[in-house]
Parts: sequence; C-alpha cells; structure tokens
Amino acid sequence: MLSEFDLIKQYFKRPATVPGPGHLVLGIGDDCALLAPAPGMQLAVSSDMLVEGRHFFAGADPFMLGHKCLAVNLSDLAAMGARPLGFTLALALERADPAWLAAFSAGLFALADRHACTLIGGDTTRGPLNICITVFGELAPGHALRRDAALPGDDIWISGTLGDARLALAGMRGEAVLAADPLDADALKRAALRMHMPTPRVALGMALGMALGMALGMAPGMAPGTVPGMAPGAANAGANDCSARLANAAIDISDGLVGDLAHILEASNVGATLDADALPRGAVLATRSADLQRRFCAAGGDDYELCFTAPAANREAIVAAARGAHTAVARVGRIEAQAGLRLVDAHGAALDLGLAGFDHFAGT
Amino acid sequence: MLSEFDLIKQYFKRPATVPGPGHLVLGIGDDCALLAPAPGMQLAVSSDMLVEGRHFFAGADPFMLGHKCLAVNLSDLAAMGARPLGFTLALALERADPAWLAAFSAGLFALADRHACTLIGGDTTRGPLNICITVFGELAPGHALRRDAALPGDDIWISGTLGDARLALAGMRGEAVLAADPLDADALKRAALRMHMPTPRVALGMALGMALGMALGMAPGMAPGTVPGMAPGAANAGANDCSARLANAAIDISDGLVGDLAHILEASNVGATLDADALPRGAVLATRSADLQRRFCAAGGDDYELCFTAPAANREAIVAAARGAHTAVARVGRIEAQAGLRLVDAHGAALDLGLAGFDHFAGT
Repeated sequence: MLSEFDLIKQYFKRPATVPGPGHLVLGIGDDCALLAPAPGMQLAVSSDMLVEGRHFFAGADPFMLGHKCLAVNLSDLAAMGARPLGFTLALALERADPAWLAAFSAGLFALADRHACTLIGGDTTRGPLNICITVFGELAPGHALRRDAALPGDDIWISGTLGDARLALAGMRGEAVLAADPLDADALKRAALRMHMPTPRVALGMALGMALGMALGMAPGMAPGTVPGMAPGAANAGANDCSARLANAAIDISDGLVGDLAHILEASNVGATLDADALPRGAVLATRSADLQRRFCAAGGDDYELCFTAPAANREAIVAAARGAHTAVARVGRIEAQAGLRLVDAHGAALDLGLAGFDHFAGT
Repeated sequence: MLSEFDLIKQYFKRPATVPGPGHLVLGIGDDCALLAPAPGMQLAVSSDMLVEGRHFFAGADPFMLGHKCLAVNLSDLAAMGARPLGFTLALALERADPAWLAAFSAGLFALADRHACTLIGGDTTRGPLNICITVFGELAPGHALRRDAALPGDDIWISGTLGDARLALAGMRGEAVLAADPLDADALKRAALRMHMPTPRVALGMALGMALGMALGMAPGMAPGTVPGMAPGAANAGANDCSARLANAAIDISDGLVGDLAHILEASNVGATLDADALPRGAVLATRSADLQRRFCAAGGDDYELCFTAPAANREAIVAAARGAHTAVARVGRIEAQAGLRLVDAHGAALDLGLAGFDHFAGT
C-alpha cells in the first residue's frame, strides 16, 4: 500500500539538478520550493488544469497523459517566448496505482528532461482524476510575445500543422462528418498521436521573442539565449520596442485557430484576413475533403501550434529562425486595421465556415 | 449564460496593481503572466489542491472556501518565511453558478488583499469541483525556514492554538468520541470557523526568517521586510548561516502536529520531546476532556499554525517578534539528538496517544 509520501518519493522525487542562474535552490520536500531567478530576467508563469472526461478520456494512456499535461503548459511558455525553468504538479487520483503512476511520471519526465524543466514541487491527493501544472519560464524584458502587440500589416504565421487532433476526436466520437468516408484504424492512430502527444514549440517561441540579430546569429540546433559572449538578458534588457523582436504577437492554438486568433485581434485592437487554403493541414487530415480540411484547420482544437504575427520585413529571418528550431512555419494571412476576422479561399473569395472557438462553459 | 471568458472577466479579473520590485509586469489575459522578481531575492513557490468531498464538504460555504483555498497556500509561504507576491488559480466547476462565483471570489480576494497577494493567472474548466492554487512569495537568500535546519537544543514553538478544527470535524461527523458530551450548536459553529477560516501566519513566518536585529528593529504592526533605510534583501543577502535567523526550521501544521513535526525531525536527522500538556489548545477544545485535548492538539489537522524550532538564546526575541506579528506563540518542547518523537505530560511522564499523521493515500 503506497502512502502519499512514498508515492511522491517513488515516482516524482528525483536527484537535484545542478544549480545555476534561474535555477533551483530547494526542490521537492519542503513547504515551498525556492528558485533563484537570473538577475534582470522576467519570470513567465502559466497554469493549466486537465480533467478526466473533459480534456482526456477515462482510461487514457498514462504515458501520453503525462506528456500532454506538461506539453500544454510548455506551449504557453512557447507562446510567450520564454525558456522553461520548472513546474509544480498537483494531482488528484482516485487511487494510487503503481503501474499508472510509473507510466504517467515516465511520460511527464521524458518531456520535462527534453526541455530542462524541473519538477520543483506540488501536491497529491485523492479525488476525481485531475492534473494541474503550473509552469515557470524566464525571458528578457521586452522579449515577451504578448497578445496585444499585433500591428496592421503584420503577416500571420502558423507553426507545424493543424487539424489532425480534431480529426482524431471526430473519429473517436464517430462524428457524422466522417460517415461517408470513415477513418481506418491506422489513420485514426496516427491522427490520435497528434491529440495525445502534442509538441510544444518552445525553441521556435524563444527564437521569435529574441532580437533580430540574436535569432539570426544562432547556429542551427543551438539553444536560443546562449549566444556566445552574451549574458542572458543582457541584450535588449529593459527594451519594450517590439521592433527588436522577430515577431510581434503570439498565442498557442488550444481551442482552435479562429477562436485563439480572435484573442490577439481583440487585445491588439486589429482585424485580420486568413487564407483558409493556406493553413498547414495535418498529414491525416490532408487525405480528407477540402471542406473538412478548412474547418478542422480553422476551428479544430488541441493543436498546440503557435499562431504569431510579424512584420513582413522579417519573413526571411523567420524562415531561418524556424529552420534553426527544426519547426515548419507557414504564412497564412495578414493583420489589418479593420476589425473582425475574414476567412477567404485560395482565390480570395470570402468563406463562411460557421465556426466558433471552444468554450468550457458554453451552454451552461 | 456565462462563457469561460466572461466568467474570468466578471469574477477574477481586477484592475492592475501598481508595478514595483518583485511585482507584476503582465497579469491575467495572456498565455503567461510576467513577474519581475526583485534583484537578489529568491522566489518561494507552493501548490495546494483542494477537492470537494476530501478537503471540504459538498455544499461548503463558497466565501469561506475562497478564503481557505488561498489560506492554506499562504500558510506554506509563512512556513518558509516568504513575503506573498501573487498566485495562480485553476478551478474546475460542475457549472458556472454566479452566486457561488461571487461569494467564492469575494472570500478569495478579501484574504489576498490583506496580504497584497495578486491573482496573476490561471485556468477555468468544467469538472468535479477542484481548486488548485500555486502561490509565489519572495525572501532574501538565507532567510528560508527549511525543514532540514532544526538543531539539537532548539526549542519547539507553536503559533496560535491547535485542535478546534479537528474538534469541528468530529462534531460534523458525529464521532463516537463526543457521544458522552456532544458539542452544542454554538460551540460547533465556533470550532468550525477554525476549520473553514484558518489564519495563515504570514507576518510571524516572515519575522522568524529574518535576522535577529531586523526582526527586533521592527515597530509593532510594521510589515517585516520594510526596515527603514534598508533595501529588501540587502540584509544578510547570500548568507546561509542559520544563526542569522530568529528560527531555524519551520513547517505549517496541516496534517496534525505529530505527523508534520516528524517531517522536520526526519529532514534534520534529529528527535524531539513534546509536552502534550503545553500544547496551546483551541478555545472550544479547552472545554473538553484532558485526553481529547491532548489527542486533538497532537494529531488534529487543518490547524494551519506554524511549528518552528529556534535556539533557546532567541526566546525573548521570538516573543517580541510574535507580539509584533500580533500572533500568540507557545513553547512546547525541545529538539534532541536522539531520534524519534517522545510525548510527555506536564510531569514529564511518557504518553502513548497512538497517533499518526494524516495521509491522503493511507489504506489504498
């Protein structure tokens, strides 16, 4: 029988990492964890809560669930341009099942280690399965990719591809939209991987928040923020001039592109035209009808790609930064002074897909 | 019908506070909040998750629940000696009930405002009622009240009083221990207030973490950390010498004194003798039998008082600091080199109360 303390010790407590600037002074096992932020750097903080039956199905694979619950939080850091530092995990479980805990923590730490993001504390309790992660990152002043910084004339870009997670959901639910052309088991499995194992675009987000020269000066594969001879936060410290960044505004796409882009438009007091046929579609979705491709790209959900806006003058630099971050990017529209979001097809003709973003309390 | 975004806007988004060192650069409404930590200060972080039916009864008063879910987190900061800065709130709700949300947020913000602790972000979703708060505080290097810093010869101290929350639980559950002498409605109500509205000992914790001179130099009622002419973190910065602090080790009592003190003993590799008759008992518990007083003080739960250890030489300074923090303290035992926890009565005779701390997964 596992006690709460044994559970934490066995599955979640790990050897301390080497301390350093912005790093851990004291980890799991006290009333609080202690972080020593790097001088002059800002701390980015985000919380996401995942509930069984709402964000994942009962009986979901625990390894993939461990990955996903951290991935959605890292995606928020990516959308801000922050470098991951650490996270807390609060976990309500119906029971302490060793096999579940081993797989969950393995999935969680596999992703955490890839981003040098340390579990610094948390809470475990009994209750309906609920996973709440709060993640911490750092970034230099002026490097944040805020929602309120899009400017008329900016290009709109999307990382990776959209829609496969939404297609997987349609397949799992047996939605009518697939009745005429059902997904085979292999296609469903491939699409479902995009839902269960999203890739947070951390390296791309960090590059987009950096000054033009820093982002371009990076060797491919080199972590942003490690420009030789430059102390973290030294470049551009104190600046709030958005022209110093590669991109102006960014958001991560969790509730569907149209709904999430609307947050940028509202916060920045601008509008946009989006080319629905330019949206980069997932490999499985690309085999479906043109209408489904448009709809699941524009208003899917669970994509965890970045939608960002940047001056047209930065196009080449953005392509180079994306290559350095090993992440595909596609240019899909334009920010405009005129309010509202206009969807067009490849010929520029207006489209009305009858879309809405995802709202957890819609209809209550 | 309330949408997720309206819910946040209506009940949780508030005018930005004045920015300052260690304060908020960007609050609710983007992918991340941004904090600018004060130079040289460490950041203390803690998460607590409260689950309906586990940490509070279904139908619990939402104002008191809003208070309690932040109070238990502030109590972790207090136990570390940290000054509160801000918190994130992740909330799963079965439905968006305006009356519940108004009362919950009122209780939450009443306590938050009292400690200048700002809600900086979070998440809302639908699901079984679950409240997860992650709280941030700051403290100067060397000021942390760690669990592993108790030394043989230290006095053991308790803030406030113990046991009324446990007595209230016994009353609500109709436990057999009260059968011979039931609580009347008024007594139950007074005891229940200690369960529902715990007082986090923030000012006391901050004073205990400070250097002897700083803690004594404070005028009564003056916030610790605001010594005139002294920049935050300037005193003692970089020091890890525990003799520079008023207290050596601390923990907050959430699962019962005996179980929580055991964490200090284990982490510090020491033992202790505790005078069960010296434990400060709650006003309602004080009317019950001597045996119940001992048991509910020693192994209650939900007390959210501080248990701390300090050199005997600091006794007068601790009493003065406690007076400055408007918080009663009682000296209840002694840290010893010999491992184990020994309970004695007022005459020094050994007691065996057959106690254990609270474990959320015991018996699974």
